[in-house]
Amino acid sequence: MMKLNNIIDCDVHPHPRNMEEIRQYLPLPWRHRLQMVNSRGMYMNPIHVNRLDSETPDGGFPCSDPDFMRTQLMDAYGINYAILLPRAFATMYPNPDFAAAVAAAYNDWLADRWLDNNNKDGRCKGSITVAPQDPTLAVKEIERWAGHPHMVQVMMDGGSRAPYGQRQFYPIYEACAHYGLPVAFHPGTEGVGINESPAPGYPSTYIEWHVGLMLAFQAHLISFITEGVFERFPKLKVVLVEGGSAWLPPLLWRLEAEWKALREEVPWVKKRPSEYVRDHVRITSQPLENPDNKQQLLQIFEMMGAKDILMFSSDYPHWDFDSPTRAFPKLEEEIKRRIFYENAKELYNLD
Amino acid sequence: MMKLNNIIDCDVHPHPRNMEEIRQYLPLPWRHRLQMVNSRGMYMNPIHVNRLDSETPDGGFPCSDPDFMRTQLMDAYGINYAILLPRAFATMYPNPDFAAAVAAAYNDWLADRWLDNNNKDGRCKGSITVAPQDPTLAVKEIERWAGHPHMVQVMMDGGSRAPYGQRQFYPIYEACAHYGLPVAFHPGTEGVGINESPAPGYPSTYIEWHVGLMLAFQAHLISFITEGVFERFPKLKVVLVEGGSAWLPPLLWRLEAEWKALREEVPWVKKRPSEYVRDHVRITSQPLENPDNKQQLLQIFEMMGAKDILMFSSDYPHWDFDSPTRAFPKLEEEIKRRIFYENAKELYNLD
Repeated sequence: MMKLNNIIDCDVHPHPRNMEEIRQYLPLPWRHRLQMVNSRGMYMNPIHVNRLDSETPDGGFPCSDPDFMRTQLMDAYGINYAILLPRAFATMYPNPDFAAAVAAAYNDWLADRWLDNNNKDGRCKGSITVAPQDPTLAVKEIERWAGHPHMVQVMMDGGSRAPYGQRQFYPIYEACAHYGLPVAFHPGTEGVGINESPAPGYPSTYIEWHVGLMLAFQAHLISFITEGVFERFPKLKVVLVEGGSAWLPPLLWRLEAEWKALREEVPWVKKRPSEYVRDHVRITSQPLENPDNKQQLLQIFEMMGAKDILMFSSDYPHWDFDSPTRAFPKLEEEIKRRIFYENAKELYNLD
Repeated sequence: MMKLNNIIDCDVHPHPRNMEEIRQYLPLPWRHRLQMVNSRGMYMNPIHVNRLDSETPDGGFPCSDPDFMRTQLMDAYGINYAILLPRAFATMYPNPDFAAAVAAAYNDWLADRWLDNNNKDGRCKGSITVAPQDPTLAVKEIERWAGHPHMVQVMMDGGSRAPYGQRQFYPIYEACAHYGLPVAFHPGTEGVGINESPAPGYPSTYIEWHVGLMLAFQAHLISFITEGVFERFPKLKVVLVEGGSAWLPPLLWRLEAEWKALREEVPWVKKRPSEYVRDHVRITSQPLENPDNKQQLLQIFEMMGAKDILMFSSDYPHWDFDSPTRAFPKLEEEIKRRIFYENAKELYNLD
């Protein structure tokens, strides 16, 4: 085995080789209705979605082969654990039964192909995809997987019809808190299918849409805090994946100033918003901000308390992959250890 | 006359004493249809919208009396010029003719009550309200006022059905550029009337909505840059009012990284996004971010190039008023002079 470098990669995307691989887990009548549709049909990446070198040796879809992923990513960098987030895009569908079936099929596939098999040393950990259209079905799906030795979190797409702190989603958060599973949000269905845009109106281009995703994530975080979700579910942990992180200090300054002035409107918000973030929210690093002056990124890390809340992620095999060895400026040893390893190890209870 | 302290206040809100004051400028059939409606009927400030001490001495509506405003704000702080932004909320109406009529009525009222009269020394400067629902009517309204000695910019609400960089708005920007009038955006109709929410779905509370306004402003700025508006209208200047400013560095880091990778999708974006901001965008300061550690705000100022783009504003008479003497941490003399005076003086061609 390769030398391990105390790295947990919190955002790796296993893909099916083709849609048949998923369809085999879909019952009728849904089996033949699943298409390879997602946000890319509307906001089309003008270059390429995946790293050009990430196709499998036999020409297969990027990150569709557990062994090749392990060689190209985990062994190459000495990554201890990879947290796998499949891309089911289940939140985009109008039919809640279909959305739930697609989520379940991806979970069955993930377990079969990546977790229960081809995972001898257990270094691949999975995410339970749920569709929030019917929270009751989402809870059933969580219950179906809770206790699985390699499922470490619940995940939903960032795309939604409402801010994710609202009450219709609470059955999901209650189940997550009950089973000790963090709930992760990953972009990809904003403004697509039945979901609202990341910001007012539809963006025109992929770049506009893609930059705007960080705004949608901020809106969900504002919602979680102002709705008092963490008071209602004190054990709930939220993971914001691939939505950026450097926006956090300005957002919290604004939110805290308004909370000090307007808190009588939201008396259930009992602590400073920054305390809820520190205690309940973790943010993955990719795509890491990259100012000309690297010192400014370190200043932002200090402002946001990155030592406690940031977790390394590469987004393998996607085009804007962040290398564990090259994406970050030089960090002090303690903050590096926490960002690359300890924060995720504690969150996911990994040894 | 009071001593002037080289301060230009870029966000002062003159209000009518009552709606009759506006209705007298509205032709039939609109005159009797105008109600005192705005975002506050949906997202209700839980405390108070205006400074409690800003009612006029005879109990009139805050900032409804030019003389009292001058005493309480301009003379009290030695403010050289006040840039007046009336709150017509014209963007919220479904009927484009009504929206245009309301905008025109506010412009007539502003000129009569605040600019052509009660403004002997010309220290009050006005904003031409337009409704973007019908850009052709908006252009006519701009043409009606261009050349007025005290109208210094065009203004629209931040609330919209589409990102403001999109093509349907270009007739307005063409007129602004032609007449040398900056176009200012001010929050207030996001998620209200016909407009999209500031971020996915409707916020539940005023605090959530109010914090979210900064996200909508970022979305509009992303749109202006990715759509190439400043290449198409090289003389256009955009003013972002009351949407915060500390979010700018993280936003530009993200936008620049994506532009470097994806620029073939938007070949009309020829310069770094930060260059467009420096050359074409000004941001007003209120509500100024207020971190526990004031040094962090100065770091953000450095990151954003605040010296060139930030302009002081108080938001008088609103509840979250920023005092010229107390809102800012201690600044070096040059940056202070530019933020409090020079940047606005140059933008608005004031002497």
